[in-house]
Amino acid sequence: MTTALYVGRFQPFHHGHLHSIRHVLKDSSEVVIVIGSAMTSHQADNPFTSGERIEMIHLALSDQGIGRDKYQVIPAPDVEVHSVWVAHIESLCPPFDVVYTNEPLTSRLFAEEEYEVRRIPFLRRNIYSGTEFRKRVLENEDWREIVPEPVAGFLAERGLTERTRRLNLSDRL
Amino acid sequence: MTTALYVGRFQPFHHGHLHSIRHVLKDSSEVVIVIGSAMTSHQADNPFTSGERIEMIHLALSDQGIGRDKYQVIPAPDVEVHSVWVAHIESLCPPFDVVYTNEPLTSRLFAEEEYEVRRIPFLRRNIYSGTEFRKRVLENEDWREIVPEPVAGFLAERGLTERTRRLNLSDRL
Amino acid sequence: MTTALYVGRFQPFHHGHLHSIRHVLKDSSEVVIVIGSAMTSHQADNPFTSGERIEMIHLALSDQGIGRDKYQVIPAPDVEVHSVWVAHIESLCPPFDVVYTNEPLTSRLFAEEEYEVRRIPFLRRNIYSGTEFRKRVLENEDWREIVPEPVAGFLAERGLTERTRRLNLSDRL
Amino acid sequence: MTTALYVGRFQPFHHGHLHSIRHVLKDSSEVVIVIGSAMTSHQADNPFTSGERIEMIHLALSDQGIGRDKYQVIPAPDVEVHSVWVAHIESLCPPFDVVYTNEPLTSRLFAEEEYEVRRIPFLRRNIYSGTEFRKRVLENEDWREIVPEPVAGFLAERGLTERTRRLNLSDRL
Amino acid sequence: MTTALYVGRFQPFHHGHLHSIRHVLKDSSEVVIVIGSAMTSHQADNPFTSGERIEMIHLALSDQGIGRDKYQVIPAPDVEVHSVWVAHIESLCPPFDVVYTNEPLTSRLFAEEEYEVRRIPFLRRNIYSGTEFRKRVLENEDWREIVPEPVAGFLAERGLTERTRRLNLSDRL
Amino acid sequence: MTTALYVGRFQPFHHGHLHSIRHVLKDSSEVVIVIGSAMTSHQADNPFTSGERIEMIHLALSDQGIGRDKYQVIPAPDVEVHSVWVAHIESLCPPFDVVYTNEPLTSRLFAEEEYEVRRIPFLRRNIYSGTEFRKRVLENEDWREIVPEPVAGFLAERGLTERTRRLNLSDRL
Repeated sequence: MTTALYVGRFQPFHHGHLHSIRHVLKDSSEVVIVIGSAMTSHQADNPFTSGERIEMIHLALSDQGIGRDKYQVIPAPDVEVHSVWVAHIESLCPPFDVVYTNEPLTSRLFAEEEYEVRRIPFLRRNIYSGTEFRKRVLENEDWREIVPEPVAGFLAERGLTERTRRLNLSDRL
Repeated sequence: MTTALYVGRFQPFHHGHLHSIRHVLKDSSEVVIVIGSAMTSHQADNPFTSGERIEMIHLALSDQGIGRDKYQVIPAPDVEVHSVWVAHIESLCPPFDVVYTNEPLTSRLFAEEEYEVRRIPFLRRNIYSGTEFRKRVLENEDWREIVPEPVAGFLAERGLTERTRRLNLSDRL
Repeated sequence: MTTALYVGRFQPFHHGHLHSIRHVLKDSSEVVIVIGSAMTSHQADNPFTSGERIEMIHLALSDQGIGRDKYQVIPAPDVEVHSVWVAHIESLCPPFDVVYTNEPLTSRLFAEEEYEVRRIPFLRRNIYSGTEFRKRVLENEDWREIVPEPVAGFLAERGLTERTRRLNLSDRL
Repeated sequence: MTTALYVGRFQPFHHGHLHSIRHVLKDSSEVVIVIGSAMTSHQADNPFTSGERIEMIHLALSDQGIGRDKYQVIPAPDVEVHSVWVAHIESLCPPFDVVYTNEPLTSRLFAEEEYEVRRIPFLRRNIYSGTEFRKRVLENEDWREIVPEPVAGFLAERGLTERTRRLNLSDRL
Repeated sequence: MTTALYVGRFQPFHHGHLHSIRHVLKDSSEVVIVIGSAMTSHQADNPFTSGERIEMIHLALSDQGIGRDKYQVIPAPDVEVHSVWVAHIESLCPPFDVVYTNEPLTSRLFAEEEYEVRRIPFLRRNIYSGTEFRKRVLENEDWREIVPEPVAGFLAERGLTERTRRLNLSDRL
Repeated sequence: MTTALYVGRFQPFHHGHLHSIRHVLKDSSEVVIVIGSAMTSHQADNPFTSGERIEMIHLALSDQGIGRDKYQVIPAPDVEVHSVWVAHIESLCPPFDVVYTNEPLTSRLFAEEEYEVRRIPFLRRNIYSGTEFRKRVLENEDWREIVPEPVAGFLAERGLTERTRRLNLSDRL
């Protein structure tokens, strides 16, 4: 019975994230989902708040029958000092046994502190990514296939694709 | 079907907090439990990390048959600027309809932003408090009656009463 | 034609502050009024925001016929590192020739950087002070005589004495 | 009688800014001019301190016969958390009724908080911009036509074009 | 051949600190002297800058024939998050084998990270302390016997006892 | 007998830095070596911690017979506000008479505060640079000729070239 740590920014929560969480839950009884850059929002690359990202995660996992006893979500603010990042996460979260990540910095930092770090097989990485989502929103292409259906509904109803579009316009001025 | 917000520091999670959450869940379908001063630990008045406090909450609520579909826990770092506190909480958390608190500053800040703020009846406030807990730990009196049983076990096994004792000694030098 | 710097917290702006500004303007053609701890509000000792303090200053000075060409108001956030405080103020404000203050730390810091620092004669210091104001608000005594009349009206209309009272109650719990 | 908010970085204060303030004052009795990124200076893109920018604004507006009763200048430090930006500005400034901006992020943030946001017609945007100013300073072209005459004098006398030049050299190494 | 870590605030460097360093060097070939609260100065309890404290340490150790090959001095800014303090010190300093401290919080934090922590015998603790030094300066009593002779000379020449006196006056207003 | 200040990031400490320190010590009896961006590490451009950089400096200078009485090393965290940078360094370091730097911003900031600033002749700048080092590590070219021999040994033994490689991979994803 192990607890896994899984870190992401979830801008937004897409099919790749869902696939990763399913993968992690094959070997772990529970996953601690850390929302990285929790206090960053309303930026071109980071349009959504921590609260909005939590809602997306609950909507997507509930829709797939993954109950709240299988995961918890912890928003983690950035720390500017990378060398204390692992200590920061250990302090914010319940204990965990193994870390799942494909991100080289996160991987390196946990490995230097002697954690077991495992990679996750990517799922159609060129499509299931926040970058692709934002590009499609901006160019009025089909962004709905990138995210789970309840997330798509949430983004539309709350005006969050409109926010994404405006913030990315900003960058192009 | 309302969602309630309930803010506390939970240093540690005691019977008073448990009583409050039961009270809140009478009128709300879900409660967002905000861990205040999330990044503060290893201080005389704030001995426990956010991760440790999350564990205490899960242990206590699970023991009482309160399932994870009824609550979520969000650690919130302090902001030095009080006037942006409500915006900070709105950004970190999923939406909520009503705020439960007895703390005058929290109450005032949410009221100034037009939230409905409700008080919670205290339960034996002179005993069920973090201050009383820390005093009893320091003076080797019975601190176990202050916290739910699984929390007492957790504090003892993890050496956290010992940490509390040492940090409070520090203050008395 | 000299420009004077005058630093205060103005929680709230009272007759003592008005007296000081009149005193400073005897020898200087203009005064730069720095609002210290600008981002601190909603605390027992610091109830008012920077914006509210700016309004109080304009109301009081306008009422006394002191035009805006005689002063400007600059809100200054605190810096935690005292040794850079003077550099911080120099960066935030237009140039100034002389510093008026009775506060020993401010006085010392500017003197160490070779500024001319002048004291201001106090006006009924036991009555005209933020501390006395907050005490009277809390105990329902006459606080109106402490502040200029337009400030009294402003504090009452905006519910700011009520905020002061609640925040100070908080401290006494 | 409305009060308008107008946010800019003013690196430096150029004819475009002057044009905007005239435009705003057609419909508002007073404008609160917020100096964004107030604590940022001595960078290639942000060479001037808050104090220097305040001086430029006073020089340019006074030269145009716009008295200090028509505007006030508030330096605002950046906040890293965009979602609290509006609360931050509300706290720093006197109340305002309408926001003038062409910047998409500022526009979006105020709109999400239900403020009326109005656009400003640009004036020869390819010439009247901080970017063009810094380019011309670096390449020894005519930068004086970009800024009001008293600002040009100020920049030259204080050695601020020289600072601009050196800081931009730095970037090109 | 071990390297020891020794943490202090050194406000100012007194005979007790000198005694501690001699004690540490009995068992270690080198000591890393960490100046805690490095960026705090010009406060009643923390009058001296990091630079001034470094000078005091060099003066006192040089006077006792302790060469610079036996120690190095590392100023360490405070971190607000205690749980990352050890990671912060590990990042700032060269590697060390053992930690010398009598301070309960420092002791606890390093022990929780599995460091060997050793206590230091106090030397006339009621006299050799920063608190006693500041009290004597304020009351014009003999403060010179508290610090090594070259430190006393340094404090007098640089006007630092005068600064101490004024900052402590400030607290008493 | 002058004391010089010399600021660098030392990511890593290479032959160019060694050459500079020799140059500075021709005219000064002691050099205060400031490690800039001290709290930044584990970034593609800034892979090494402050502690690791201190070790490199001691290893390289000791190897060249430059004793610790000739220099001291002071790690300096960044300040976001450039206009207080000089005050920040003055506070952290013992007094210095002259500043050696080729970096335009550092040069400008010290010059504005009336310090004498001197340039240092570059040594094979296209090879002896942190950028070249990181490029060669990433492309498995000869990075050892860029740094003094004891630094090369240190980087290899501690796995720091491997960290450099991984962090720079990260950037290329």
